[in-house]
Amino acid sequence: MYSKDLEKEIEFIIELDKMKSIFRQTSLVDKSRRENDAEHSWHIAVMTMLLSKYANEDINECKVIKMLLVHDLIEIYAGDTFCYDEIGNLDKKEREKAAADKLFSMLPEKEGKEIRELWEEFEEMETKDALFASSMDRLQPMLQNYYSGGGTWRKFNISKEQVYERISPIKKSSKELWEYVENMLDDALEKGFMSGEKE
Amino acid sequence: MYSKDLEKEIEFIIELDKMKSIFRQTSLVDKSRRENDAEHSWHIAVMTMLLSKYANEDINECKVIKMLLVHDLIEIYAGDTFCYDEIGNLDKKEREKAAADKLFSMLPEKEGKEIRELWEEFEEMETKDALFASSMDRLQPMLQNYYSGGGTWRKFNISKEQVYERISPIKKSSKELWEYVENMLDDALEKGFMSGEKE
Repeated sequence: MYSKDLEKEIEFIIELDKMKSIFRQTSLVDKSRRENDAEHSWHIAVMTMLLSKYANEDINECKVIKMLLVHDLIEIYAGDTFCYDEIGNLDKKEREKAAADKLFSMLPEKEGKEIRELWEEFEEMETKDALFASSMDRLQPMLQNYYSGGGTWRKFNISKEQVYERISPIKKSSKELWEYVENMLDDALEKGFMSGEKE
Repeated sequence: MYSKDLEKEIEFIIELDKMKSIFRQTSLVDKSRRENDAEHSWHIAVMTMLLSKYANEDINECKVIKMLLVHDLIEIYAGDTFCYDEIGNLDKKEREKAAADKLFSMLPEKEGKEIRELWEEFEEMETKDALFASSMDRLQPMLQNYYSGGGTWRKFNISKEQVYERISPIKKSSKELWEYVENMLDDALEKGFMSGEKE
């Protein structure tokens, strides 16, 4: 007979379906609609498979992928907070901590702890794995914005300074990716996708 | 300066955005709409993190996760073929092979080969890693059907025999998951979610 643990895991898996209905501000490249957390998490996990070789330091690719697969789970209860929303970000940490307590306690203790630790490492952004994971999380919406003609940068009148601050993890974790990104941002500025002067 | 390889990889990453618009027959648990390939791929990758411990044999969890993240990429060009669609399945292999040739050749040779090999291993369903990956791919829509009150089983009048054939990889790869699944199917039959008699 199957275990009580398996029953809990299946219930958790069903709860995860809600990630498909948590919408982010970023749009699909074809601009047809906003993307959701499940799609975003999938996209950055695959990006890691392709781009982890550009990390400045040796990273644990498998751990980064797992981290990215679960980094937004707490949004099932805490909702998505737009990165440039100053008011929403005031109580973000509190809301997400409460969501984590509720969500991860659905799992058997060991699994709940493992996933929570991945999420916490991601949030603290101190280890080289977390920094690279964060780079993927920042690069993907940037690409979607650029390839959709400005996206949220244009919609919310985001400045170059705000974008540069947001993507600083890329600068810290990969020289080659950073060169690519700087080039893309110069072009985005020239095209008027964000506000500010080209230096 | 960044490499030509990185340019190709970024173009490929942008192309992957189309996975978010390839819709499967399976609905979300809340029945609000059908799910897409990106969401499905994310869900089964996370399921692997939780359920790989139930595999009968030692499997390479990281490889299974990567396999699942890319197993449906070819549907960007080949479209999703419903598993119970007999006509659509007649030329599925051909269509998917052509899609793979087109898609994976966008990447630098080494990366294209790596991802193609993961996809081929998944499709051939012979290794223990591919069998477990396939189990996740079969279990997830089953859970969505069960928890949404019948889903595609009911909509397309699918029989118990068809479902049992479809989920046979689970039987081959995990004793404990199979026990869970058999129990769920008995209940699904009793509830009239699929056609056929309970044995």
